[in-house]
Amino acid sequence: MPSQMEIICIGNELLIGKTLNTNAQWLAKRATSLGVIVERITVAADDVDEIADVIREALQRKPRFIITTGGLGPTFDDKTLEGTARALNRKLKISGKALAMVKEKYESYVRERKMEKAELTPPRVKMATIPENAEPLPNPVGTAPGVRIDLEGIVLIALPGVPTEMESIFDEAVAPLLKKEAGENTFFEESIYADGIMESTLAPFTDQVMHDNPYVYIKSHPRGEERKPHLEIHLSTNATNSKIAKDRLKMAITQLSALIKKSGGKVAHQRRTVT
Amino acid sequence: MPSQMEIICIGNELLIGKTLNTNAQWLAKRATSLGVIVERITVAADDVDEIADVIREALQRKPRFIITTGGLGPTFDDKTLEGTARALNRKLKISGKALAMVKEKYESYVRERKMEKAELTPPRVKMATIPENAEPLPNPVGTAPGVRIDLEGIVLIALPGVPTEMESIFDEAVAPLLKKEAGENTFFEESIYADGIMESTLAPFTDQVMHDNPYVYIKSHPRGEERKPHLEIHLSTNATNSKIAKDRLKMAITQLSALIKKSGGKVAHQRRTVT
Repeated sequence: MPSQMEIICIGNELLIGKTLNTNAQWLAKRATSLGVIVERITVAADDVDEIADVIREALQRKPRFIITTGGLGPTFDDKTLEGTARALNRKLKISGKALAMVKEKYESYVRERKMEKAELTPPRVKMATIPENAEPLPNPVGTAPGVRIDLEGIVLIALPGVPTEMESIFDEAVAPLLKKEAGENTFFEESIYADGIMESTLAPFTDQVMHDNPYVYIKSHPRGEERKPHLEIHLSTNATNSKIAKDRLKMAITQLSALIKKSGGKVAHQRRTVT
Repeated sequence: MPSQMEIICIGNELLIGKTLNTNAQWLAKRATSLGVIVERITVAADDVDEIADVIREALQRKPRFIITTGGLGPTFDDKTLEGTARALNRKLKISGKALAMVKEKYESYVRERKMEKAELTPPRVKMATIPENAEPLPNPVGTAPGVRIDLEGIVLIALPGVPTEMESIFDEAVAPLLKKEAGENTFFEESIYADGIMESTLAPFTDQVMHDNPYVYIKSHPRGEERKPHLEIHLSTNATNSKIAKDRLKMAITQLSALIKKSGGKVAHQRRTVT
């Protein structure tokens, strides 16, 4: 049984539609390809109560991993760790390890510019103020460290919202953890494209193929206009072995293609495999 | 007090990172510009229990509007209405009005192609099978109707996941409703850009300006690299009158710009106003 994950994205800019949530897609894709199942994505406001609520709710569903993005920076509305501490009923404390990470960043910044001493102002200290018994994760490309908190059966990880920072902390500190957890489990996907067949005509065919291939999940996506149906048919499977996965998808595609052609549709292949 | 909304996006393709959630951004931006506050966005799987859970949870938070996208099509995994019916403890029923909408679509499709009679197969009838006492919303560009359900104090609206269909039903049937609810209330936003100042140095300035301008919300977004800070500073306000809104933003920008320049930073303006 693959491990389950929830993603929580924090930021008013997502709720006013100013920012497209590319972080959620990036994390979902990476986690899926590492063999983890993303069960839910939640977007919440920069508000301590809201953040505490969404984290508490996620904890109750007991996924193996909860990853938050956003709200770790120096400004007053970076409230993720305050909300996390409240959800966990823990205190916020200045972490010596995190403070050393933040300090080193400012000192090297100041050195490069031949500026005066790098002051550890309150907004800078804030970035090193994390829940008790949490582990700061080094940020290779920015200032605010990520945070890892190990709970009973659940690992909660807070990543920054700036995409390059989020991605590099994920790659360094989170991906190895997911990989280890997932073991050999891998996700495979492939799409075929059908023309000249309506989605409602295809529906019983996908039902039949999924019934005959219980480990393959098939979903159709209308891509054309209403008057000129063009369907992307996406097939995916989780397997412990890439040969098993490929064989499974191949069998399902062969069967589905035959059904589509029999009903007068055309099928085109285009490999889109994530390993 | 502006009306509150939750957006629920349903689809496994979002949870495996195959699809970028542009629907959530589009809806959030449109609702915000119509004067409504989007409080939460949730992405859930094509699973009846999951859908029922996320809808029940949203109902408990009592927003004025809940909009779902996705899961209204003809295939077995289009489960939004089944999940909605379960959350509301209502039966699913074939709606005569919805069936007429679906039938008309297939008949015109078949006429254009000089095909045989348009059969109302089970997958097609499925698109007209909606919760009891729900109102189907015509789909100007696709087949599956949207659905509107009026509850005590809450309006629940289900839209398709295909962006053009979602957008056109929203524009025809949802936008006028939100506009009416929001009255004169409008959202205004503007960004300024600062160079040569770190976010941690800016932090106390934004605090001060927000304190002095209580109706203006300010959020900074790092856009440059760590070694070459470039900040987008986004200011926004909800107001009942566009002159009030513009004056508010202008006052806040003047004060903030002066603080940034005083600390050695540079400020650039770029108008990005939604009305």
